[in-house]
Parts: sequence; structure tokens; C-alpha cells
Amino acid sequence: MGLGEFDRIEKFFKPLAARSPGALELSDDAAVLPVFGLAGLVVSTDALVEGVHFRIGDTAELIARKALRTNLSDLAAMGAEPWVYMLSLALGPLDGAPMDPWIGGFAAGLAIDQEEYSIGLIGGDSVSTPGPVMVSITIFGKQGPDGVLTRSGAVAGDDIYVSGTIGDAALGLKALRGTLTGLGSETSAMLVDRYHLPRPRVDLGMALAGWASAAMDVSDGLAQDLAHLCKASGVAGEISFKDVPLSRAAGLLLADGLASVEDICGGGDDYELLFTAPRSARDAVERQAELAGTPVCRIGGIEAGQGVSVRDGAGRLVPLRRLGYRHA
Amino acid sequence: MGLGEFDRIEKFFKPLAARSPGALELSDDAAVLPVFGLAGLVVSTDALVEGVHFRIGDTAELIARKALRTNLSDLAAMGAEPWVYMLSLALGPLDGAPMDPWIGGFAAGLAIDQEEYSIGLIGGDSVSTPGPVMVSITIFGKQGPDGVLTRSGAVAGDDIYVSGTIGDAALGLKALRGTLTGLGSETSAMLVDRYHLPRPRVDLGMALAGWASAAMDVSDGLAQDLAHLCKASGVAGEISFKDVPLSRAAGLLLADGLASVEDICGGGDDYELLFTAPRSARDAVERQAELAGTPVCRIGGIEAGQGVSVRDGAGRLVPLRRLGYRHA
Repeated sequence: MGLGEFDRIEKFFKPLAARSPGALELSDDAAVLPVFGLAGLVVSTDALVEGVHFRIGDTAELIARKALRTNLSDLAAMGAEPWVYMLSLALGPLDGAPMDPWIGGFAAGLAIDQEEYSIGLIGGDSVSTPGPVMVSITIFGKQGPDGVLTRSGAVAGDDIYVSGTIGDAALGLKALRGTLTGLGSETSAMLVDRYHLPRPRVDLGMALAGWASAAMDVSDGLAQDLAHLCKASGVAGEISFKDVPLSRAAGLLLADGLASVEDICGGGDDYELLFTAPRSARDAVERQAELAGTPVCRIGGIEAGQGVSVRDGAGRLVPLRRLGYRHA
Repeated sequence: MGLGEFDRIEKFFKPLAARSPGALELSDDAAVLPVFGLAGLVVSTDALVEGVHFRIGDTAELIARKALRTNLSDLAAMGAEPWVYMLSLALGPLDGAPMDPWIGGFAAGLAIDQEEYSIGLIGGDSVSTPGPVMVSITIFGKQGPDGVLTRSGAVAGDDIYVSGTIGDAALGLKALRGTLTGLGSETSAMLVDRYHLPRPRVDLGMALAGWASAAMDVSDGLAQDLAHLCKASGVAGEISFKDVPLSRAAGLLLADGLASVEDICGGGDDYELLFTAPRSARDAVERQAELAGTPVCRIGGIEAGQGVSVRDGAGRLVPLRRLGYRHA
């Protein structure tokens, strides 16, 4: 037997809400967010399930941070400033691990990323389940003075950009599963870390508000997510694989034939920003990316029509059915 | 195989968001709530787990409505006006039932209560789980001109009130479990319905803002929840069981010795409002309750000190350890 629900809230979660606006010390029926003066409140929910989105063997700290960061990535995609979040936690048998240390580790993970991203807990619910652990976070961001970024604003002639490097998390998952051979331990650790711990591009998203015509985060794989963006905008998109930014590790695996275009453009969990901007904004995009301290690469262009195409290094079309990747 | 995640959103959930402000047709990374001009946004999360808070044998429609209503009850407790909600849904094996009809029923339940309470879906996440179904809802309400109700404002000398009738849901759960004998089928159906379908006291909560000194909803049992309210307010409370409002069914069961004080004050899931108000506001409370169309009863008083006591019909103290009821 561990602590009861109320004692757990007192010990582990109340400290996380100590400086949050409107949290009412987690002691009331609801939080009261002081939204006066805000034009728009950006709200997103992401849920992670044990065995589907993480493994109970992952440390509780990492699971907590991944849950927060996938949500932060949604705010980044909207160009919103992270503010506060609600946590819904269903606690299961934890493969027999004692519950209170696990929750302590989970809360410690939240604390680290609260500092990192200047956010605070305002409330939530904690329930027990006979099944897998589930973490659902609803995150709140402030709309900035230049409005929000959506998926639906891309027009023919726009450039397509992506931040950071693509494919590392999917390769990290393959490494974890043991289906990627011939990796040095350092390379493997780097890729696995990219899978475990997304880097939500919050500063970049905020810097692009007012400049980008459309944006989203890459969670289902570059090709599929570009298809989502193009569909929402009513346009077509083409990217050139040779311009897709790769880490040194992914580049070497590709050169050695150990990773494929499909692994990189069809994998998921990148949590980079995919966005479009008019050609006239090229200098501005470069400047804003520099201000945000986040590298971005121009990888293709938007055209009239519908659908998405990817050209490989030799300029050949990559069959798209091989790039579809869905996690429900 | 049923529909994929995207098709499900399109078919079942997009219609629920058609008139919701800021939902962006559920097609973007986040919703954008137009909060301009609002003083405060009241936010609450409640999660329900199959096998803990509902049974998969319950219809999907009922599960959806119960999930919404437990959340609406939190808004009622704060005196807030219901507005919109986010839905996080983890879908499991459903005891082998086909998934799409189940989700259809679930969405139909949401649609009914969206009408009933003038609320709309703005977003969420849908994931699959190998384990029990879990529904987590984050609900948003608008703070009214008279501010919000909290648990912490009760002072010595205040009256204690409760709305509706107490104990029916707990007796309904006993009936469902077959541990309550000698019930007529009509009585049984009424009690079970009270367990399945809470009546969140939204109108009453809004009417009490500005009049009640403290409020919360009764979900863990009258005695335990009064203890929460008293602790948050730093006061003591005493209620008289003979003044606690009972349905005709609960009254008969009590008279026949088939239900006890403990069943009624220690059971959960009432979702009535428990609140306090100064004696000087007695007329106002009566008037506001009438305006809201919700019966309320004065059941006791707040005193200096700490702790809660319940006196039975004969004026004797009921041992409180028998009234504790927790569902984690």
C-alpha cells in the first residue's frame, strides 16, 4: 500500500502548482485561469499509453517529460507561448514497481520541464486503473500579438521548411527494438535520446508567428504530416529528400544502407516544425530562426493541386504508400 | 478492423465541434479559445476508467454522458457557466464489441448532453490501449460577474446546505451489485439511473455565485466532502441527519432498515451541491434556488474549530470512521 490519492496530491503535485496562476493550490473543484486581457487561449491535449507510446521500463521521469513535450510541441506548432497545464493520470500495476517512488520520479520529471519551459501545473485528476498507465495532458498557451499559426494557410509558390533534423527518433526506436544493427553505442544513445525526449520548437514557433503561412509539428512522419498540412490548405507539396536535414548519425546510416528514405520521411516522433512561408519572407524566416536559435532548412515548395511527392537524391519520386505511418 | 483515427474523427467527432468557438474543425494542432473580455476561465479535468468508474456493459452513450456530467458538476461547484470541452479517449478491446458502433454510441451520448448543457467539443486526442477504456475530459466554463465559488470561504455561523437528494446513487450502485434486496423494480431503476446519470447542478451553482460563502460538489460522499470543505475553510461543520434530504425510495429503505446512515452520508456519486452561506442570506439562497429550479435544504451549521460531525435522527453522533469513502 502506498499513499492515498489526497496524500499523493499533497506530496507530489501541490509543489508543482505552487506558482501557477489560478491553481487554487489544487484544493478546489477547478482551476480559475486569469485570462483577462488575452486575445486567444491555445489549448491542446495529447495522451500517452504504456506499451503504445512508452514502455514502463522507461524511467517515470522520462515518461513525464515526453508527455509534457509532445503537448508543448503542439503549442509550438501554433506559435503560442506555453503557460500552464492540466494532468490526468491513470495509474496501473507498474509491472510490480512500488507506486510512490514511481510517482515521485514522474513529478520530478514534470518539475524539470516546468523550469525549462516556464510552465506550471494548475490541476487534473488521478485515478487508478487495472490496465496500462495512461498520461493525458491538456496544455494552455497564450496567443501572441501576431496571432496563431494554423495548418491551413499555405498557398502555391510558398516554400516548405523544416526545423532541426528529421528521422532520428524513428531510428532511435529501431535501435531500441534491436532492428538497427551496426551502430556505435554513442550514436545509438543519441538516436534513442531523440526518441525519448522530444525538443519542442517553442521559441521558433513564436518567432514564426506573423511570418509563416502554415505550420504543424512532425509527429506522424514528415511525408504524412506534409500531406495533412497540404490537405488543410487545399494545395499540393513536393519535397526534395536531398534537402531534408539529417543528423550526422542518420546521414551515415543512410550512406551505409542501414537506413532508408522511408525510415526517415515515414518515421514519426520528430517533433520538429514543418512550415511554409512566402518566398518574399525568406530573409525574415532566416532571421527569425536565428533569433530563436533553431536551425531551419528549405526542403521544397507548395504547388496548386493536391497530394504530396518526395523526390529522392536522384530526383526520382519515392512511392508514397511506403511513407505512410500511423500510430492511432 | 474499424475506421482509422482520422476517419473516426471526421465521422464521429467533427460534427460535435461544428459550432464550437475556436475548434478549427478539429483539423489543427490545437484549439484557439476566444477568451477576449473574459475575467476568468474555469477549468476542470475528470477521468473515468472502465471497471473502476463504469462497466463496459454500460452503454457507450451513458458512459459519455456520465463523463461529461461529472465534469459539468465541477463547473457547477465553482458557479461557472459551461462553455466547451476537450476529450481524451483511450480505446481498448471493449470486451470484443465492434469499435465503430461503440464510438458512434459514445458520440451520440456527447451530442445529447451538448444540447442539454449548451456546450461544444473543441479538440482532444484519441489513442488505442491494450487495457481498459479511459475517458478524460477537460471542461471550460466562464466565470460570471459575481466571481467563482470556492471551498475555502466558509466561516463560523454559516449555514450548511445541500441540493436535491443524497444517497440515491450509492444505493443505486448497491442495487446494481445485487447487495440491496427487497427493492421494487421501479425503485431499483430510479436509484440505478441516479448512479448512471448525474444531474450536475449547473443553474444552481451560477445562481449561488455572490451568495454562497463556499461550495463543492458531492462526489466522495456527503460526510467526506463536507470534511474537505471545512478543511479548506479552516472551520468545523456539523450536520443533522434528519435534515438531509432523501428521495422517497431512500427514505423507505432507511425506514425498513435496508439502508443505513452510512450508506447515505458515506456513499459517493451524488453530484449534488454542498454549500455554505451566511444566515443573513437565507432568503436570498431560497430565492436563488427557486430561480434555478433546484430544491435545496439547510442541513447544519459551520463552527469554529476543525472536523465534521453528523448527528443521527436521535441526536447521537455517528462515528465518522464509518463514513469515509474513497475512490482513488
